[in-house]
Amino acid sequence: MTGNKYCVIMAGGIGTRFWPMSRQSRPKQFLDILGTGKSFIRHTFERFEKLIPAENFLVVTNRRYKELVLEHLPELRPEQILCEPAGRNTAPCIAYAAYTLLKRDPEAEMVVTPSDHLILNEEDFRAIIRECMDFAAANDALMTVGIKPTRPETGYGYIQVSDDSRISKVKCFTEKPDLELARTFLQCGEFFWNSGIFIWKVRTIVEAFERYLPEHHALFSGVMRAAGTDAERNIVEMAFAECRAISIDYGIMEKADNVYVRCGEFGWSDVGTWGSVYQHARKDRYANAAPAEGCYLYDTRSSIVSLPKGKIAAISGLKEYIVVDTEDVLMICPRAEEQNIKKFIDEVKYNDGEAHI
Amino acid sequence: MTGNKYCVIMAGGIGTRFWPMSRQSRPKQFLDILGTGKSFIRHTFERFEKLIPAENFLVVTNRRYKELVLEHLPELRPEQILCEPAGRNTAPCIAYAAYTLLKRDPEAEMVVTPSDHLILNEEDFRAIIRECMDFAAANDALMTVGIKPTRPETGYGYIQVSDDSRISKVKCFTEKPDLELARTFLQCGEFFWNSGIFIWKVRTIVEAFERYLPEHHALFSGVMRAAGTDAERNIVEMAFAECRAISIDYGIMEKADNVYVRCGEFGWSDVGTWGSVYQHARKDRYANAAPAEGCYLYDTRSSIVSLPKGKIAAISGLKEYIVVDTEDVLMICPRAEEQNIKKFIDEVKYNDGEAHI
Repeated sequence: MTGNKYCVIMAGGIGTRFWPMSRQSRPKQFLDILGTGKSFIRHTFERFEKLIPAENFLVVTNRRYKELVLEHLPELRPEQILCEPAGRNTAPCIAYAAYTLLKRDPEAEMVVTPSDHLILNEEDFRAIIRECMDFAAANDALMTVGIKPTRPETGYGYIQVSDDSRISKVKCFTEKPDLELARTFLQCGEFFWNSGIFIWKVRTIVEAFERYLPEHHALFSGVMRAAGTDAERNIVEMAFAECRAISIDYGIMEKADNVYVRCGEFGWSDVGTWGSVYQHARKDRYANAAPAEGCYLYDTRSSIVSLPKGKIAAISGLKEYIVVDTEDVLMICPRAEEQNIKKFIDEVKYNDGEAHI
Repeated sequence: MTGNKYCVIMAGGIGTRFWPMSRQSRPKQFLDILGTGKSFIRHTFERFEKLIPAENFLVVTNRRYKELVLEHLPELRPEQILCEPAGRNTAPCIAYAAYTLLKRDPEAEMVVTPSDHLILNEEDFRAIIRECMDFAAANDALMTVGIKPTRPETGYGYIQVSDDSRISKVKCFTEKPDLELARTFLQCGEFFWNSGIFIWKVRTIVEAFERYLPEHHALFSGVMRAAGTDAERNIVEMAFAECRAISIDYGIMEKADNVYVRCGEFGWSDVGTWGSVYQHARKDRYANAAPAEGCYLYDTRSSIVSLPKGKIAAISGLKEYIVVDTEDVLMICPRAEEQNIKKFIDEVKYNDGEAHI
């Protein structure tokens, strides 16, 4: 029954918000920022492995992370890693996976998922994914999963539902509203956070590419035809060089009329900021999220501390700080100022080059 | 003329106040805490080398630091390092050196100096030392050097002079007065900080040992007789095991009646605290004492930052902090709380053992 069900993990991100813990050479999806014992990509794999057999996974990532993916997911064969020569947002990433699957199994049904999100209630989550898979199998539907919002977040995309059904047609997508609009969305009850998880038959999404992103359809049809031949690498290179960088939301989901959403609550977070890490981390009685061993805190409260393995810290007198120590970089920053991390990176990169980025 | 002039550097200290920068394995005298390019012991050697030839130096240190001393002072031969099996305060340390010199050269004149102090005005300092050496050569005097106090310091010993002469007889020694007394001393004008630098003929100090510390005289006379024989190591071991731990100030200087002091000003500091390091370090326009390269400070003022070679730091929002990062330990502490470092060390030692101490 699961033979034609596939899971595509998008793992090409190179975020900078968790610098210096995340690096270009080891971005967030390969880290265990919350100290759970497993990386985000490993959690993602295990979450879906209960629904879809390991041999039916594809991971789309940047070429430089191929070995890292195989290290974190040793169940996968190298052929299951699709390497992007360059990041071009989600539409090319998904096209690459969809056309690859189309060649392998025209009846394929696929789930697409980010690799670096947190999901606390996995049972509920899987029940929802199952529902979506059933719906997408029975209908020519482009399915997405919505999250009931808990705050007027301005950094997310929102999905407006058209009715109260468990699975509702989508009325509208809105990217990153301003605070006022986000507050209205929260009160209104019709708006849900876009989880970036998609479920559809390969045929359905390929038809959508053909119609809404014909340029991508042409390029990745070419990739499909070249798959397994000597020309493959060059064709992929060319497709990514030529194709427009565009998100699947903007390129297809906002335009298509067969878009559906299943909304739910299952303890979701994109863990996109240190604030969100702090929120989800285990804290001591002074509200510090710090290593249980080797980290001595005095007169320190509501702070996050991350240390390299085996390193000792004695920290006194910090309130609401982020302290991230790594082999080659130490960062100390008030939690309220974490948006400045980007500025730190720019300055370090300008003066010291890429080595510490 | 300098053939019978000797310099004894006391380098056995194992301070903890600069942890985690200083370690049991590399205490302060081997560090360059102020970023001058040379360790304290190296500066001490070079300061006296202009007065006394390298072959006339002795360094008394703990056995475990012998190699470190030779590394910092490659001009010395291994025989010039006297190894203490255990620290027993300054009287046994000085006795070991004095009786060693007595055997080698009964006419020896010696200067004894700590290894980890800062002296800014070396010209003036050497002029004073020369004066003291001349005086000690001509008189049976136990000479010490006093420093004009600049604040009511409660951590130092004070020397009271008996008159205004350049070289005055000492009226009284007072160890670590309380704040009220220290304020009185500062106002009075008769009290000077005890620099821990001594100048005397070997004969004079040996006579003083014989009279005031006869037990030490007996033990270190034994060491002297055994010097150069197979029994030497055992006899030294026994002398240090049996002798009372006592300072030269308390054991001899406070009791003898031929004690003189030459007071002066030459930019002296024992650099005994981070506060004192901060005071003497080069600071940027926000009053931060931090590495000139690789240390990015934002909204940070009046702080000290020390990093391992090659490490990058991005630090935001700290006012008056000490940040010391080393390979295996990170310490962050408000400058006003540096007395707590001892507490940190105790707790780390209790939980993690000696490895990080």
